[in-house]
Amino acid sequence: MKRLDVIGVGPAGPGWITPETQSIIDAATDLVGYAPYLDRLASERHHCHPSDNRVELERAAQAMDLAAEGRHVAVVSGGDPGVFAMAAALCEVLDRDPRAEWAEVEFGVHPGISALQAAAARVGAPLGHDFCAISLSDNLKPWSVIARRLQLAAQADFAMAFYNPRSSSRPWQLGEALGILRGELPGATPVVFAAAVGRPDEWVRMTTLAEADPEEVDMRTLVIVGNSRARYFAHGDEWFVYSPRDYL
Amino acid sequence: MKRLDVIGVGPAGPGWITPETQSIIDAATDLVGYAPYLDRLASERHHCHPSDNRVELERAAQAMDLAAEGRHVAVVSGGDPGVFAMAAALCEVLDRDPRAEWAEVEFGVHPGISALQAAAARVGAPLGHDFCAISLSDNLKPWSVIARRLQLAAQADFAMAFYNPRSSSRPWQLGEALGILRGELPGATPVVFAAAVGRPDEWVRMTTLAEADPEEVDMRTLVIVGNSRARYFAHGDEWFVYSPRDYL
Repeated sequence: MKRLDVIGVGPAGPGWITPETQSIIDAATDLVGYAPYLDRLASERHHCHPSDNRVELERAAQAMDLAAEGRHVAVVSGGDPGVFAMAAALCEVLDRDPRAEWAEVEFGVHPGISALQAAAARVGAPLGHDFCAISLSDNLKPWSVIARRLQLAAQADFAMAFYNPRSSSRPWQLGEALGILRGELPGATPVVFAAAVGRPDEWVRMTTLAEADPEEVDMRTLVIVGNSRARYFAHGDEWFVYSPRDYL
Repeated sequence: MKRLDVIGVGPAGPGWITPETQSIIDAATDLVGYAPYLDRLASERHHCHPSDNRVELERAAQAMDLAAEGRHVAVVSGGDPGVFAMAAALCEVLDRDPRAEWAEVEFGVHPGISALQAAAARVGAPLGHDFCAISLSDNLKPWSVIARRLQLAAQADFAMAFYNPRSSSRPWQLGEALGILRGELPGATPVVFAAAVGRPDEWVRMTTLAEADPEEVDMRTLVIVGNSRARYFAHGDEWFVYSPRDYL
């Protein structure tokens, strides 16, 4: 049997790897993915094929080639493989550039815990009502598309989660995004920065749309913006934020 | 220690229950939640407090009361507790109606696999680009809010996942929603109905916005609508659908 499974190992740690995903890791002969994700699964039993972060299509084709040779391949994403991750890249090579030798490879995708879920859980339920997820990276889409999407999302009053909010090569996009939202939403709208959730260097900062400072954010950060009904509250020594279930 | 954890056990089966969630189930003395979710975790060791599906706030207050009495309580949602589930209800009672005896209860939320992730994985990567999640239930929000949100989401070209698409008491909402989308999006836009994913009675149907028939859908179904770039493709004997990573 020739088999390729696309899996996601959650944002951090073993506690968010589902039993289904773990059983695929245990059965796979070869692991393909971004090096830091493979390092988390380190096993002498596996053939590891680490790659850089910006070569998704090449990595997807390489993984299909390995599976076609009879290896049982697991393509490893962080988070959920279906959310800004490798499942779409695998689909893309199978759709646009299929090779005859791949035809017999069984292909499956398996859900994982995404960064937006882990970040939201840390602070309560900020995505507890209708929400959207937007990548602020303009590497693969024009900024004009992102800007319009942000404006419409604010008008639709979605809670929002931003992936890829800021990096050294994309320093201005988050500030621009917050500026667009400030034109549509109250300054008191809750904003959460959640960095490296589940890792030793995790930090979470709760602020407001008016006061949110993009300089605090880097690539390890997930940004959440509440909807118009979102509320902060204190319980014990901690603060939480949620989007109420009702909208009446 | 007084402790309440809000957990999610995924859409079905043990394979999507994270180790973190399983360890909370194992440590908890009391399980609170909708009866069918508790049935999945059946253990003679637990005190189970099953309740009906439409009493979230009463259930949340009951769970806090139990924790304040010194029980270790796990509030159980299907899917992810932060996505249209119990985390927001717990936050709501803690925010709006806190009782003095709850103050010492430690409170935490833990992510789980949501239905939208499981459904998306079954068919490839339809939510592989920017996406939104909308509940089509107008029990807790006016239909006018939902209708406007659908229209703006289509204009923003989000991939979409619809929770609570249709029930015997809400028979017309999905048809109305599809009608709104037909006014904004091409008839060829991919639509996926995914029912009871992970359960023995699972079925998945791929269709288009023009041909999608709401009569096929019930409360067990998650509805996914692709974005304007979404594509179907065949691999082996199966069909898949994905939203490409790029938008150029």
